[in-house]
Amino acid sequence: MATILLISGPNLNLLGEREPEIYGRTTLEDLVEVASATARAHGHEIEHFQSNHEGAIVEAIHSARGRCPAIVINPGAFTHYAYAITDALASHDGVKVELHISNPSARESWRHTSVVAAVVTGTIAGFGAHGYRLAIEAVVAKLGEGS
Amino acid sequence: MATILLISGPNLNLLGEREPEIYGRTTLEDLVEVASATARAHGHEIEHFQSNHEGAIVEAIHSARGRCPAIVINPGAFTHYAYAITDALASHDGVKVELHISNPSARESWRHTSVVAAVVTGTIAGFGAHGYRLAIEAVVAKLGEGS
Amino acid sequence: MATILLISGPNLNLLGEREPEIYGRTTLEDLVEVASATARAHGHEIEHFQSNHEGAIVEAIHSARGRCPAIVINPGAFTHYAYAITDALASHDGVKVELHISNPSARESWRHTSVVAAVVTGTIAGFGAHGYRLAIEAVVAKLGEGS
Amino acid sequence: MATILLISGPNLNLLGEREPEIYGRTTLEDLVEVASATARAHGHEIEHFQSNHEGAIVEAIHSARGRCPAIVINPGAFTHYAYAITDALASHDGVKVELHISNPSARESWRHTSVVAAVVTGTIAGFGAHGYRLAIEAVVAKLGEGS
Amino acid sequence: MATILLISGPNLNLLGEREPEIYGRTTLEDLVEVASATARAHGHEIEHFQSNHEGAIVEAIHSARGRCPAIVINPGAFTHYAYAITDALASHDGVKVELHISNPSARESWRHTSVVAAVVTGTIAGFGAHGYRLAIEAVVAKLGEGS
Amino acid sequence: MATILLISGPNLNLLGEREPEIYGRTTLEDLVEVASATARAHGHEIEHFQSNHEGAIVEAIHSARGRCPAIVINPGAFTHYAYAITDALASHDGVKVELHISNPSARESWRHTSVVAAVVTGTIAGFGAHGYRLAIEAVVAKLGEGS
Amino acid sequence: MATILLISGPNLNLLGEREPEIYGRTTLEDLVEVASATARAHGHEIEHFQSNHEGAIVEAIHSARGRCPAIVINPGAFTHYAYAITDALASHDGVKVELHISNPSARESWRHTSVVAAVVTGTIAGFGAHGYRLAIEAVVAKLGEGS
Amino acid sequence: MATILLISGPNLNLLGEREPEIYGRTTLEDLVEVASATARAHGHEIEHFQSNHEGAIVEAIHSARGRCPAIVINPGAFTHYAYAITDALASHDGVKVELHISNPSARESWRHTSVVAAVVTGTIAGFGAHGYRLAIEAVVAKLGEGS
Amino acid sequence: MATILLISGPNLNLLGEREPEIYGRTTLEDLVEVASATARAHGHEIEHFQSNHEGAIVEAIHSARGRCPAIVINPGAFTHYAYAITDALASHDGVKVELHISNPSARESWRHTSVVAAVVTGTIAGFGAHGYRLAIEAVVAKLGEGS
Amino acid sequence: MATILLISGPNLNLLGEREPEIYGRTTLEDLVEVASATARAHGHEIEHFQSNHEGAIVEAIHSARGRCPAIVINPGAFTHYAYAITDALASHDGVKVELHISNPSARESWRHTSVVAAVVTGTIAGFGAHGYRLAIEAVVAKLGEGS
Amino acid sequence: MATILLISGPNLNLLGEREPEIYGRTTLEDLVEVASATARAHGHEIEHFQSNHEGAIVEAIHSARGRCPAIVINPGAFTHYAYAITDALASHDGVKVELHISNPSARESWRHTSVVAAVVTGTIAGFGAHGYRLAIEAVVAKLGEGS
Amino acid sequence: MATILLISGPNLNLLGEREPEIYGRTTLEDLVEVASATARAHGHEIEHFQSNHEGAIVEAIHSARGRCPAIVINPGAFTHYAYAITDALASHDGVKVELHISNPSARESWRHTSVVAAVVTGTIAGFGAHGYRLAIEAVVAKLGEGS
Repeated sequence: MATILLISGPNLNLLGEREPEIYGRTTLEDLVEVASATARAHGHEIEHFQSNHEGAIVEAIHSARGRCPAIVINPGAFTHYAYAITDALASHDGVKVELHISNPSARESWRHTSVVAAVVTGTIAGFGAHGYRLAIEAVVAKLGEGS
Repeated sequence: MATILLISGPNLNLLGEREPEIYGRTTLEDLVEVASATARAHGHEIEHFQSNHEGAIVEAIHSARGRCPAIVINPGAFTHYAYAITDALASHDGVKVELHISNPSARESWRHTSVVAAVVTGTIAGFGAHGYRLAIEAVVAKLGEGS
Repeated sequence: MATILLISGPNLNLLGEREPEIYGRTTLEDLVEVASATARAHGHEIEHFQSNHEGAIVEAIHSARGRCPAIVINPGAFTHYAYAITDALASHDGVKVELHISNPSARESWRHTSVVAAVVTGTIAGFGAHGYRLAIEAVVAKLGEGS
Repeated sequence: MATILLISGPNLNLLGEREPEIYGRTTLEDLVEVASATARAHGHEIEHFQSNHEGAIVEAIHSARGRCPAIVINPGAFTHYAYAITDALASHDGVKVELHISNPSARESWRHTSVVAAVVTGTIAGFGAHGYRLAIEAVVAKLGEGS
Repeated sequence: MATILLISGPNLNLLGEREPEIYGRTTLEDLVEVASATARAHGHEIEHFQSNHEGAIVEAIHSARGRCPAIVINPGAFTHYAYAITDALASHDGVKVELHISNPSARESWRHTSVVAAVVTGTIAGFGAHGYRLAIEAVVAKLGEGS
Repeated sequence: MATILLISGPNLNLLGEREPEIYGRTTLEDLVEVASATARAHGHEIEHFQSNHEGAIVEAIHSARGRCPAIVINPGAFTHYAYAITDALASHDGVKVELHISNPSARESWRHTSVVAAVVTGTIAGFGAHGYRLAIEAVVAKLGEGS
Repeated sequence: MATILLISGPNLNLLGEREPEIYGRTTLEDLVEVASATARAHGHEIEHFQSNHEGAIVEAIHSARGRCPAIVINPGAFTHYAYAITDALASHDGVKVELHISNPSARESWRHTSVVAAVVTGTIAGFGAHGYRLAIEAVVAKLGEGS
Repeated sequence: MATILLISGPNLNLLGEREPEIYGRTTLEDLVEVASATARAHGHEIEHFQSNHEGAIVEAIHSARGRCPAIVINPGAFTHYAYAITDALASHDGVKVELHISNPSARESWRHTSVVAAVVTGTIAGFGAHGYRLAIEAVVAKLGEGS
Repeated sequence: MATILLISGPNLNLLGEREPEIYGRTTLEDLVEVASATARAHGHEIEHFQSNHEGAIVEAIHSARGRCPAIVINPGAFTHYAYAITDALASHDGVKVELHISNPSARESWRHTSVVAAVVTGTIAGFGAHGYRLAIEAVVAKLGEGS
Repeated sequence: MATILLISGPNLNLLGEREPEIYGRTTLEDLVEVASATARAHGHEIEHFQSNHEGAIVEAIHSARGRCPAIVINPGAFTHYAYAITDALASHDGVKVELHISNPSARESWRHTSVVAAVVTGTIAGFGAHGYRLAIEAVVAKLGEGS
Repeated sequence: MATILLISGPNLNLLGEREPEIYGRTTLEDLVEVASATARAHGHEIEHFQSNHEGAIVEAIHSARGRCPAIVINPGAFTHYAYAITDALASHDGVKVELHISNPSARESWRHTSVVAAVVTGTIAGFGAHGYRLAIEAVVAKLGEGS
Repeated sequence: MATILLISGPNLNLLGEREPEIYGRTTLEDLVEVASATARAHGHEIEHFQSNHEGAIVEAIHSARGRCPAIVINPGAFTHYAYAITDALASHDGVKVELHISNPSARESWRHTSVVAAVVTGTIAGFGAHGYRLAIEAVVAKLGEGS
């Protein structure tokens, strides 16, 4: 059984309230539960961490070293400039999934660039709450490769 | 039961032979079977179309109009410049998934731009053969929203 | 009496169905008839060719050499990157008109660049079905200059 | 019967004298007569205004509000930087045609950008004096749509 | 008592008519009255000058030398390219306020650059008619510093 | 009576000490008092929050939801890259004012870009301590519109 | 004996007053006299025209056609964007000198680009009042070539 | 004895007719014969394939796998954007020569970029028909290295 | 005796574990000891502060005002975008050294830009643990200049 | 009496032979004589130095320190990249004139940038042999200012 | 019999020692002998000149005027910035071949630009020592055209 | 005992005279003595080479092969464009230090790019004469690693 670290970046604590025409009515708790249910179905568990602080996210990634073989991260706006997170992710040896609720490529141009995309295993974007299930499935599949 | 159109772009017919250090040893047939098995498990079916011709892919997308409620497309190198495919996808009302086997953001800089990303529902990249299962799961989930 | 080659690029076969809020309800057949009627009124005829294949369009342009003194082309998405069509048009000595139904400058930024504009006689854009009549009138006028 | 405002930008008063290898021997009076004859044939009339002053052109466009249902403008060099004209055109609700005698895309690179293209109905470029007839035809056709 | 020169750039004479969804229903006269009332309340007066001509605005700025200790300017579209106004403003020693009714940063990308911003005392943008009051208050405050 | 949230970004706690040739001798307390006095005069109150932490500013903006109908923010250096603040501001429905003590356009080129400008109601820059009064006046005026 | 048209662009009427640390104390009248004295010494005469209006400068250049075999122009800020002047100069067949009092390359970056440089015979910049004498000498020399 | 695949891209079928001032009077058949004669002299043979279809060229490259130890390709206009050909060439293990009849660096700027240059063994450009002989000589030499 | 503030940016707490092929096996404690030993040898002392939080680093720099005459900072990934640190450093009057363990210019292109380089006294990069000794030597030397 | 250093950059020794359609038939000796005659007429003398070596030109500039109060330099192709010459010129306190025979702005785009323009007193370009006389006149005038 | 000038740019004297994984073990003498043998076989001779000095290469090119009807140049790093060599080559009327041992397009991005490519007859790159034979063959072929 | 090659680029021979406000009053001899004293203290010796010629510096670097295990280079203006020096340094296997007296990042933007930074061991910039001691210390430390 593995603990999968699920990280939610800035402003995601507002989900369900903030700009529902883009992000929908689902709350962050709903999304975490989607991920947790998926993980449980595979015998794994989710540890969720939300923060609006880049440094706290860096440290959450550090805390996963040697403990969590996989990280799923929705970096929110940090996606586009927070290279400290890039470096933290690069230092983690496990499976790493970049996750976005909406499709950044269909929004403002500054959302088209991801500074973390080059250091993750893969990316899932645009599928709303389903993305949380898909990301965990992706993690489970990649973890299974190594067994 | 829905027919999901799975499109494979140029050079993907070489999968398993071409640059296995990037794309792995899995063949395109293997990938299609992954997608098909996933679809069948949900009561759907896959129609697969591979082509090295941009025009043929445009026409495959056209052929899906009113017939296939979802398209999964791995556009290969067409991802980066083939705006005719962008226009074709934009004209399809269904669920549309952009799929990549490897992580384009971790490769040459010309692979970092996708001209189709803005017109699809979402993107899945970097998970190898697992991506084909995830993409079908994503389609099924999005189709289920409408029911 | 001259045969004027009218070329329609990718996705134009969907006209009337595809994104009618941009392109209107008129079908490609309607547009061709507009062009044909205009040509007939001047004693000329239209040969229409639609393709979603860049190579087929290149060859249609080749086929016009020594046979059609004028080409009217709506290159669709090929407008923005298909330099093989640029080269083909450059090799034709006749009157060449670039035609767009909608106004590309009022749409996405990638539609603001035309790789064929530098090698045509002139451009007509933004007038919907009327553009087909205007383009043929432009051809007739330019052909008349040489007589 | 409608009054169509025809605007000629800077240096166009020199037509017939200035760089005839690019602009031809036709004078501005000739072009206005082409436009007028076309308008008359449709029961409309042309009001022509030439100026080398951006501000005067802005005011001519203002003067057309509620009086001229259509504007045909050859902005000359103003095409490439005069955003005050862009704003003026945007404030006019009628049919607006951007017209060029020669093909700007076949000339210096600074002529490839038009700051007015995004706010007009459509563009006609490269057909010499014929363009003036075509532009009026375009106006008449678009005006006819509304009737 | 000081005379504050209030300058309104191109197309602002249309205020109240032009694109009211962006600029509102207030007329330029209303705005000038807002500024005048504010100035009068502080014992100053407003001299208003509107022009669609860059040169006339340059000369209005010149005319303020040694006569008006402050200039409030809404340069309209000239904001984005009219360097002659930049030079004129740079040659005036007084308080200079750049004023915009709407928020240029929330509109087209060409409105994001101001060629006058570097030579003014400060900028006020996005507050509609209130901006005219705020700009005069800003002038009064800065003039008061020197006393 | 409304509570207006006044946010001061990184390094603003040093005001009065840091680079007085640019920012002056006024302290942050002085500025807050300017804002508070202005608010009180209109029957409102100021809640001030200074932080050098982007995440803390994001959370302060969140805390204003449903409680403070207006935010005045001087984001300091965060102006130029902190998109998490952009997203937080976008999620707030009230009046939002971007405030700068000095004129960023007259300083280093990296200060010419604001990543928050597109999501605020308006901007006030360059008027030193007076800007704090003007910003509150702007808030009061905009709040008054809704009454 | 030839009439040489000397054109002074926007803000040059302020010379001697405006930013003397850059432009010096010499007035425009002084400079015109320098040019006139130089011209007289060679049996020619100067016709001077200053304007802050781009359109007026365009027309002054037109007026020189067939009358003045040479133009010396200090376009001031118009140097950097006024393509209507570029077109006007291109339409004049004579000797054309671009003249600057100070050295634009040693000032702000937007002054490093000249839109007229490509269509003039040559450029003289940075020599203050002496530049007016040198420019006339340059004209005389070039006129002499044709004799 | 080896079979060397010689590929000719779009519009090269027009050689001898199209723009002879750039490409000369030699026909494609002449060029193929130059290559064939050179190959024969070394005991090898040429298989020639011309197409205006990017997909057909991709497939011709695929067909060479395990059969032709070398490819000589003149991609014509595809040189500048057809990344599907780049990928196809990258998947071939043999000697690969990029060949151009004229010198692209001496023509329009869009011809200065080659998307295939990074994946070929080497490039030969600018020597007209001689280039076909040189390219085959290059292939023979590189093939000889492996023996 | 001076207290020199040594600041270590994000992810540096992982040194010795994280990507040792780039950063080596030395731990942060080792590096601090290198710096401390060097400082002690000159009669100075080191105060070390590591943080993954930009705001905390800003505040550490503030805390050095009037207390530490020199700062040595290895900003880690913050080097490339954290302008709040730039402003904090600019507000410190002492000696400031930017220090990097590896050579950023030999790594990814986003590491080639430093937003702090313009406000420090100097930079030392690429010498691994030795850099910490060199940086302290540099500080001592610069402090000695002022005595 | 002053010695004016005249420096001719690379390839200028070929003048009269090389590309006479651009540079004319005049030889470098002719140009030096033009400069010398002009200098002599003012009681000065020319010391001429031509080199195709950047280093030699740097040293010639050094040699002028304290000996030649003025330098006239036609840097040839070094104009566009040779920053060592920029630094050398910046270290000379005298009058410095950048001189070009033809008009670089009317030629290839790489000739539009001058890396020395920012450090010279002024520039004279486009007047052929006359430029050598004008440059010396400019030097004499500027030297006279100091007397 | 013709003398063909073979020029080797900076660092090529180290061939065989320097970075053999890129350039191979062949020495410059070996390469010159390859070229010489090829030339001799056609009745021509090679004159070889290697220099690390841009100026010396410029002068070698000058020395070829009227003496060597062809130049083969491997400019080494000068390829990417040494415009003085561009000008020197442009002034030579003969056949000019740009030659590279390795394929610059497959290396660092700064090697992708050649400032000499536009002024040579053609380019040969990527074929190692064979390139020297091919370049001479190219010269012989082009010289033969003129006979 | 090792011989460390110290290279000084163009214009550094003027140190102490040239722009002392930037470079200080120390002469190059002083700096060499700083380096020499440091080297002697560690049992090594300095060989100094100054040149204003790029080619001579390339050759000095060549001369160090197999003789000097370390190079310290202050490339002066060559830092920013002299790729021949980049290649020469890349071919040397020893320790290589890029050294600058002042801080290039705090000066003109063209000084912010170093073409040699990617191929050296490390960089030291901004510490004036102290930098020469630090650079030798860096060399000694790195040489010691290999022992």
